[in-house]
Amino acid sequence: MRNIKLVIEYDGTNYHGWQSQTNALTVQQVIERAIQKLTGEECRLVGSGRTDVGVHALGQVANFHTGSRIPADRFACALNSVLPDDIVIRHSEEVDSDFHSRYSAKGKKYRYLIYNSKYPSALLRNRACHVQYPLDFGLMKEAASYFLGTHDFSAFRASGSSTKTSVRTITHVLFREKDCGSFPGGDAPFFGRLFEFEVAGDGFLYNMVRIMAGTLIEVGAGKIAPGSIPEIIESRDRKRAGKTAPAHGLYLVEVYY
Amino acid sequence: MRNIKLVIEYDGTNYHGWQSQTNALTVQQVIERAIQKLTGEECRLVGSGRTDVGVHALGQVANFHTGSRIPADRFACALNSVLPDDIVIRHSEEVDSDFHSRYSAKGKKYRYLIYNSKYPSALLRNRACHVQYPLDFGLMKEAASYFLGTHDFSAFRASGSSTKTSVRTITHVLFREKDCGSFPGGDAPFFGRLFEFEVAGDGFLYNMVRIMAGTLIEVGAGKIAPGSIPEIIESRDRKRAGKTAPAHGLYLVEVYY
Repeated sequence: MRNIKLVIEYDGTNYHGWQSQTNALTVQQVIERAIQKLTGEECRLVGSGRTDVGVHALGQVANFHTGSRIPADRFACALNSVLPDDIVIRHSEEVDSDFHSRYSAKGKKYRYLIYNSKYPSALLRNRACHVQYPLDFGLMKEAASYFLGTHDFSAFRASGSSTKTSVRTITHVLFREKDCGSFPGGDAPFFGRLFEFEVAGDGFLYNMVRIMAGTLIEVGAGKIAPGSIPEIIESRDRKRAGKTAPAHGLYLVEVYY
Repeated sequence: MRNIKLVIEYDGTNYHGWQSQTNALTVQQVIERAIQKLTGEECRLVGSGRTDVGVHALGQVANFHTGSRIPADRFACALNSVLPDDIVIRHSEEVDSDFHSRYSAKGKKYRYLIYNSKYPSALLRNRACHVQYPLDFGLMKEAASYFLGTHDFSAFRASGSSTKTSVRTITHVLFREKDCGSFPGGDAPFFGRLFEFEVAGDGFLYNMVRIMAGTLIEVGAGKIAPGSIPEIIESRDRKRAGKTAPAHGLYLVEVYY
């Protein structure tokens, strides 16, 4: 049996998230069926982790074992020919038999898009979180920088979730305004501003990036002072952080191995 | 009767273009119905021009006459509350009674997006024209520059269309590669390149921008030399120019008055 690794882009709008479930169409199921169609084998696809309903991915990683003789690098092209056009395999390769998309992952990068404008955008409607009231870019940028480093992120974890430890190391944070041409037509008159929050680390708790984004939005609105982010982290109190920002602004960008 | 001007963004994916027709849903009809719902009046909305099935707009302009007392600047917000989320009124204002979205227009700006990558993109699937084979950016940029100026653009007009004159003045051309962050997640591994062709002028013949874009794609592929663009223009022969590029890469960005 060979072990095949896939790098997957998807528009999460029309799926009930990544992970297989009964009575709802998920990205994992759609790809598993496509693999079965190609190989004729039952397929169990292992993803690097779940993504929620509406969350997008640019570099989700998954692997599966197969006895098929299809060359590893051909899987991308062959799968794309049977997959719907909102799921695209960007890359396929053979990996060591012990490679496991989830357990072998050393880290992940996520991106969250915030569209700040009086009215929502037709073209970004499922791609960025719309915020109607004016946001202060400088305050948000400062606040984002406090996420860097190793912290107990209990305050940024969905209540009810349980993992052994809530200590995570954030190795990269970027908060920037995308330039005028940053989305198709973004510099047309009466358009607003598009902010991008990017964060990478050795792991993320459930809803962690969305709670970070929601907290930054409250900072931008003047409800939370940027300098109080370290305190909020230290408090380990979910109620001190901001609301969970909506799923459709979130992108899983890359998984590191 | 007051004359109200609207600036409209729409995702053209789910509509049969701008202009009203029987048995197919168009952007114009959807907005006319929304206006009727608000004002209780029959409404005839005049657009700056048609857009084809699948073409997007960031700054389409339309106007209508109304006896309603709704303040002009409130129409945007009120209409957005009843419109579907793929059509957004970005701005509304009262204009002189003789303002006519089509006849008063002095020019337009369009944008065309080309996604150059081995595989198509899930997130750009209805937003950019996918080209699989490698395109030469430099050649395309050079070719685009030859469109500038006043020319008879018969070679860049859909055959069968008839307008009094096919002479148009192109005042602005831009051909650029959008940076890595140019669309959500564009710098994830295994992504391709996104090229933007922007063109403004005093008017455009039917399919003119799409034929220009299709010609640039053939230039990028090495099938047409950039230096032969002036000849192709002079030939006035539609068969000398490239194919009409698909509608979903095209954006009406702005209408000038």
